[in-house]
Amino acid sequence: MLYLVGLGLGDAKDITVKGLEVVRRCSRVYLEAYTSVLTVGKDALEEFYGRKLILADREDVEQEADNILKDADVSDVAFLVVGDPFGATTHSDLILRATSLGIPYRVIHNASILNAVGCCGLQLYKFGETVSIVFWTDTWRPESFFDKVKKNRQNGMHTLCLLDIKVKEQSLENLIKGRKIYEPPRYMTVNQAAQQLLEVIRNQRARGEEPAVTEETLCVGLARVGAEDQQIAAGTLQQMCSVALGGPLHSLVITGGSLHPLEVEMLSLFPVPEASSGPQSTEGPRP
Amino acid sequence: MLYLVGLGLGDAKDITVKGLEVVRRCSRVYLEAYTSVLTVGKDALEEFYGRKLILADREDVEQEADNILKDADVSDVAFLVVGDPFGATTHSDLILRATSLGIPYRVIHNASILNAVGCCGLQLYKFGETVSIVFWTDTWRPESFFDKVKKNRQNGMHTLCLLDIKVKEQSLENLIKGRKIYEPPRYMTVNQAAQQLLEVIRNQRARGEEPAVTEETLCVGLARVGAEDQQIAAGTLQQMCSVALGGPLHSLVITGGSLHPLEVEMLSLFPVPEASSGPQSTEGPRP
Repeated sequence: MLYLVGLGLGDAKDITVKGLEVVRRCSRVYLEAYTSVLTVGKDALEEFYGRKLILADREDVEQEADNILKDADVSDVAFLVVGDPFGATTHSDLILRATSLGIPYRVIHNASILNAVGCCGLQLYKFGETVSIVFWTDTWRPESFFDKVKKNRQNGMHTLCLLDIKVKEQSLENLIKGRKIYEPPRYMTVNQAAQQLLEVIRNQRARGEEPAVTEETLCVGLARVGAEDQQIAAGTLQQMCSVALGGPLHSLVITGGSLHPLEVEMLSLFPVPEASSGPQSTEGPRP
Repeated sequence: MLYLVGLGLGDAKDITVKGLEVVRRCSRVYLEAYTSVLTVGKDALEEFYGRKLILADREDVEQEADNILKDADVSDVAFLVVGDPFGATTHSDLILRATSLGIPYRVIHNASILNAVGCCGLQLYKFGETVSIVFWTDTWRPESFFDKVKKNRQNGMHTLCLLDIKVKEQSLENLIKGRKIYEPPRYMTVNQAAQQLLEVIRNQRARGEEPAVTEETLCVGLARVGAEDQQIAAGTLQQMCSVALGGPLHSLVITGGSLHPLEVEMLSLFPVPEASSGPQSTEGPRP
């Protein structure tokens, strides 16, 4: 049996009781290490589970699915995923590969940012399409996500923006020279996402367009949702450029315009702290 | 401290390790008993937790919030919610009440149908606004949810339909006579939801409108998501009228039209079983 086990969002104890039982009895346990991170690293998970974990990065899962699935028809293999196995990244590939090999699978669900974001008080059923905001480079500055935000706002829907994570990146030099040396992981902050959004807005105005989001649009910045030290701050997009939310992971919500009174009241619990200034570190624990 | 603890979707062991620790150490533990149910009842939860649970129905939570919160400033009180505390029903009221009384709160997240629905293979970020389908009566047959489905489909988004639950209902006679006798709980099946949808479609055609959904629209019926015996069936809306998915809870997804090839491949794992015929029981375990 292949088990896809969600780990939730905070630390080692956010696994479900059922998930923990599965992890402890499987013959091999993989930890997916490329789409998200907990506030604790692999060591803390291994200690709590009492198990060695095999890190599986994107290449492994795509190229070595058969290794992961080896003998899973006669023994139990677990594949651990931060959040829910069907959250931000689906693992359909692995499931389809298992099914084609005649290997049964089971999913142990858990919280994902897609539902836990409700903790800020915005109503989940009023969220439209989720978007991803990627790190811009000098030569690649995609703005297409902005169309989805616009469509959501036109329909009065909030937009959850998942912020980029870069793990196991090679510098251009190391890539060219074929050296498997990787850069430190980078996690986009709410500040960086807000600054990129403001640049999209400036670009749209320069083209004579009326942007669907402005400096004054109400947004919510969230950091480390589900962890003891989670931070939430509701304020304008301009304020999101400098709000201090601490270490990763960050997420940003762009509200859909008209809010329910209960949403307004809940957001008022999370004012932007006065001391906020300057962008935050993008470094965090390796999974 | 007030703890809002998500129980996930399946059985007693879907609570997180962190949630279980909270439940075991709190001085009072309430179980929210009106928006959703697990596949097991209160007794099974009490046995697994080793704790007595206090059932809190809608009236209690709205009228007796102060009782729930009593002494929560000096001791720990847990409020257990099937799914995630910010899933289908938010508990903003309770949080705002606690905050106004100076009582701190914490949320222990878990899976909710809003993210676990991804197990059918449809991509979560492509879901639009969630709708609720309520039991029609002879005199109250709301069709307004259909506009939201239409808007989602126009934007190529899937629609998760949460199906009605009726617990602690009084018959008109008992209501008039002031007798606190309650009807057995009722849970809407995918069959019933599909039949109501077909009636909306017929009504729209009778008015000369072109419905956004037809008998042939691809839908996904889900039952007991997260439980060992969960069932998923992908087929036309017409097929959803008779597909046999077993006991509650059921959910229905109306797809958004064009699907990603991976979505198509995943849905092909869940054909409508040939034996399906006749509507299913709406009865299930009391929480």
